[in-house]
Amino acid sequence: MSKERLYLYDTTLRDGQQTQGVQFSVPEKIAIAEALDAIGIDYIEGGWPGANPTDSDFFAARPETRATLTAFGMTKRAGRSAANDDVLAAVMNAATPAVCLVGKTHDYHVTTALGITLAENLENIRASVAHMVAQGREALFDAEHFFDGYKANPDYALDCCRTAYAAGARWVVLCDTNGGTLPDEIGTITRAVIAAGVPGDHLGIHTHDDTGTAVANTLAAVLAGARQIQGTLNGLGERCGNANLTTLIPTLLLKEPFRSLFETGVSEEKLKSVTRLSRRLDDILNRVPLRSAPYVGASAFAHKAGLHASAILKDPSTYEHVAPDCVGNTRLIPMSNQAGQSNLRARLKGMGIEIDPKDPRLAEILDEIKAREDRGYAYDGAQASFELVARRVLGLCPEFFEVKRYRVIVERRKNRYDQMVTMSEAVVVVKVGGEKMLSVSESMDAEGHDRGPVNALSKALVKDLGPYQSLISDIKLVDFRVRITQGGTEAVTRVIIDSEDGHGARWSTVGVSANIVDASFEALLDAIWWKLIRDGAEAV
Amino acid sequence: MSKERLYLYDTTLRDGQQTQGVQFSVPEKIAIAEALDAIGIDYIEGGWPGANPTDSDFFAARPETRATLTAFGMTKRAGRSAANDDVLAAVMNAATPAVCLVGKTHDYHVTTALGITLAENLENIRASVAHMVAQGREALFDAEHFFDGYKANPDYALDCCRTAYAAGARWVVLCDTNGGTLPDEIGTITRAVIAAGVPGDHLGIHTHDDTGTAVANTLAAVLAGARQIQGTLNGLGERCGNANLTTLIPTLLLKEPFRSLFETGVSEEKLKSVTRLSRRLDDILNRVPLRSAPYVGASAFAHKAGLHASAILKDPSTYEHVAPDCVGNTRLIPMSNQAGQSNLRARLKGMGIEIDPKDPRLAEILDEIKAREDRGYAYDGAQASFELVARRVLGLCPEFFEVKRYRVIVERRKNRYDQMVTMSEAVVVVKVGGEKMLSVSESMDAEGHDRGPVNALSKALVKDLGPYQSLISDIKLVDFRVRITQGGTEAVTRVIIDSEDGHGARWSTVGVSANIVDASFEALLDAIWWKLIRDGAEAV
Repeated sequence: MSKERLYLYDTTLRDGQQTQGVQFSVPEKIAIAEALDAIGIDYIEGGWPGANPTDSDFFAARPETRATLTAFGMTKRAGRSAANDDVLAAVMNAATPAVCLVGKTHDYHVTTALGITLAENLENIRASVAHMVAQGREALFDAEHFFDGYKANPDYALDCCRTAYAAGARWVVLCDTNGGTLPDEIGTITRAVIAAGVPGDHLGIHTHDDTGTAVANTLAAVLAGARQIQGTLNGLGERCGNANLTTLIPTLLLKEPFRSLFETGVSEEKLKSVTRLSRRLDDILNRVPLRSAPYVGASAFAHKAGLHASAILKDPSTYEHVAPDCVGNTRLIPMSNQAGQSNLRARLKGMGIEIDPKDPRLAEILDEIKAREDRGYAYDGAQASFELVARRVLGLCPEFFEVKRYRVIVERRKNRYDQMVTMSEAVVVVKVGGEKMLSVSESMDAEGHDRGPVNALSKALVKDLGPYQSLISDIKLVDFRVRITQGGTEAVTRVIIDSEDGHGARWSTVGVSANIVDASFEALLDAIWWKLIRDGAEAV
Repeated sequence: MSKERLYLYDTTLRDGQQTQGVQFSVPEKIAIAEALDAIGIDYIEGGWPGANPTDSDFFAARPETRATLTAFGMTKRAGRSAANDDVLAAVMNAATPAVCLVGKTHDYHVTTALGITLAENLENIRASVAHMVAQGREALFDAEHFFDGYKANPDYALDCCRTAYAAGARWVVLCDTNGGTLPDEIGTITRAVIAAGVPGDHLGIHTHDDTGTAVANTLAAVLAGARQIQGTLNGLGERCGNANLTTLIPTLLLKEPFRSLFETGVSEEKLKSVTRLSRRLDDILNRVPLRSAPYVGASAFAHKAGLHASAILKDPSTYEHVAPDCVGNTRLIPMSNQAGQSNLRARLKGMGIEIDPKDPRLAEILDEIKAREDRGYAYDGAQASFELVARRVLGLCPEFFEVKRYRVIVERRKNRYDQMVTMSEAVVVVKVGGEKMLSVSESMDAEGHDRGPVNALSKALVKDLGPYQSLISDIKLVDFRVRITQGGTEAVTRVIIDSEDGHGARWSTVGVSANIVDASFEALLDAIWWKLIRDGAEAV
């Protein structure tokens, strides 16, 4: 049986921009459009030209894409022709091959929000779509509030869809604008639309996650016959966000019945880049990636339970519904005091250390980890520090250098212009192979702003480590997380640091102390130590 | 028609603890159990006694709950009786009214992971459940890998469920352990189980979010007939997490067809605390709450699109599927408009400040708050700092004293006994009236342990404030939370401090800076300032 084609429509650059705290620049929009194009998305909605200067600029500077670039707008207003509607003209002027126009389909919204008659609204839909088609554009009609509208007045909501279709719309997109519809209802209503005369291969689905079912709603519409899927990367979007394409794409390609029934523009090979695509968006937005995200999250294939981890070692399918490499993600067997020795052996193996299952040092390592966790350490987010603990027990951790002392000063006072300013200064004294080295650093960044005591310490620590300098000079501190936690009976500070090298490799380390500077220093030191081991440095 | 009862089963303290980076302490487990009990959860699964020392300690120290406290464990192993299985004995010894035992139902797992015959596994299920029932416990059977097992060998998977039910299990819980099953299949298979003889009112559903459909899967099972729902707060859990109860509970109470068909232990009144419950868990875990979370996220009722915001002002139902106050959440509309200002007036009134609705300073305050939020401040959890911002704009904030400068030193070095030790010292210089006062403090606690630079600063700051001393001497720093967040384009540190006076009153303040010491100092200063205002101090 030949597979039916499903079309993927991305609205990260338009609906995704409605996310609180998100505001893309033009270069960011271009970078995202290129990434979407590379993975095989069919339509890229770039924004609403005319409504937003950045969106207009994006269309002016748009990249070449294989995907159909689409401008968003709304149907013409009543009392003027489509050709004379300036909002529509701005959309037209973006000169994209496709245009998506949103229009009302819920009678209440037509009469109260627009204040026009139901017939006028139908005519606005018809004339706007026909105008776009006459100008040679592929026209899409976003049926706003469609599901709520259908429940209030099914005939009218269906009339709106039929009108758009009859006027030449390539796609009529059923929008659950308020995000309140549940999967069963989505399926039932989608089937009703097809029965009313808009064929499924001209129907799209656009859902929001206000009940946590945006993905399931989308799948329900596809099973009911819709053939275009609208969504965003990482589920960005107004309120709770849109249907998440980084979840939907793997499901469509990997899971039954979708895998057997449909094909999309994303190949199995391209699917392997979906994790990278998801992280890339977070990178651009400077957001911390959601660890628990389906398929692409750092925890999506993390097996913390001891029983799970030991089964995974025998056969990954025991606790994984798909293989992580299908989506370019990786399996993680984290350490924690729920973990058994099988977790530990797997983890050590991942570090290149083979240990006999009967080796008594396995228990010794677990005891050491547990004792440290009781003091406030946490190792499932700090694999590099875990490795160092294990290596120390196993005698596989060279003594590269010794920290003799450090001192940090934070001072806030008036500068010569009578402004209050803060400065931080750190001195670190280390002994490398018999030689004592003193380093001092301030915490100022390139613009002269204080970045705080940990920054100063970090810079002083890596300033001069003699023979190791070439190995540590590309270490960059990329994230820093602080938690006040319980260590024994006292509150202590736990610091987790993510570091990155020049090749983009990342590792995480942990430090714990009642003193936040001390905790940070410990994590910084672990980060350097781990890098030296990984790069095969030898103690001098 | 009378409504059918749905039972809510929370496993935050067990499956939720499988989340990467989550490790509850006993006091945290107790606090969470009490919060779950307060909202009306039916069953609270506290952990696996015997497998994990914290879980055993929690059961020993367990709070009184109306909810049925449940211990988790696994069915007995082959080759011994239920009474002689030490794992089962540890679960029994937790002395909870209910016990949930997980057992295999997928033939492949029985023969390969357990290495026993299918018949032996059935007998393990039967004997374990019967043993619990004989001891007067309510028994639950978690049918592990049930959906995958059913697809591989439906007869055997059903046999496992029927065996548990026949042995007296109150609930047979269908677990989608690997999280790979999609909603339609969940519904179909759940119906098959009921047809095979386990009644729906003895069936539970336990789903994971590996395809982003855990909530929809749960709803599909309920529509198919299952009457117990397992999930976790905020969707914590192994890999991508479990079904999110903070999403499911509002849907069950507010959305059709569930609202009409079912009742739960959560009243509509209690539902108003679900947002607070969700935030409380994040607080305990020091996680940044997910803004986009359905119902309870800070963005769940945020209307960023201009068209949406203006429609919302006319009629909230235009862009909200439920009203935010049903779930104790709040609508968020761009601060500049009318709705933002009336919110603000209500908040000021709560502080005893009455402002005319036409006062232009309302807009000024909103602008100032917005500008500060852009720099990383957060005022939701820092009411006292919010009040100070408003008072400064209104000219209602006396200048009690001026901080001229401060300096903190953190030093780590060897002491005279050749041990590495850390010490912190702070100097604070303030001007009160015309008088300059210098204070210095170390950070040592009563046992001589360093408590860090913020502790030293705090002590130096309150050491001598001249005429205000009597008002501040009873201030105690009770909690201190640190988050790395985004301020403009740079990462900054946000510190929130909870203070308490001698009468047990508490207030919270916030500070933000790239420098954690600076951020802490700002929050400390706000805490003192707010107390002086509340106690009616006058500037000297």
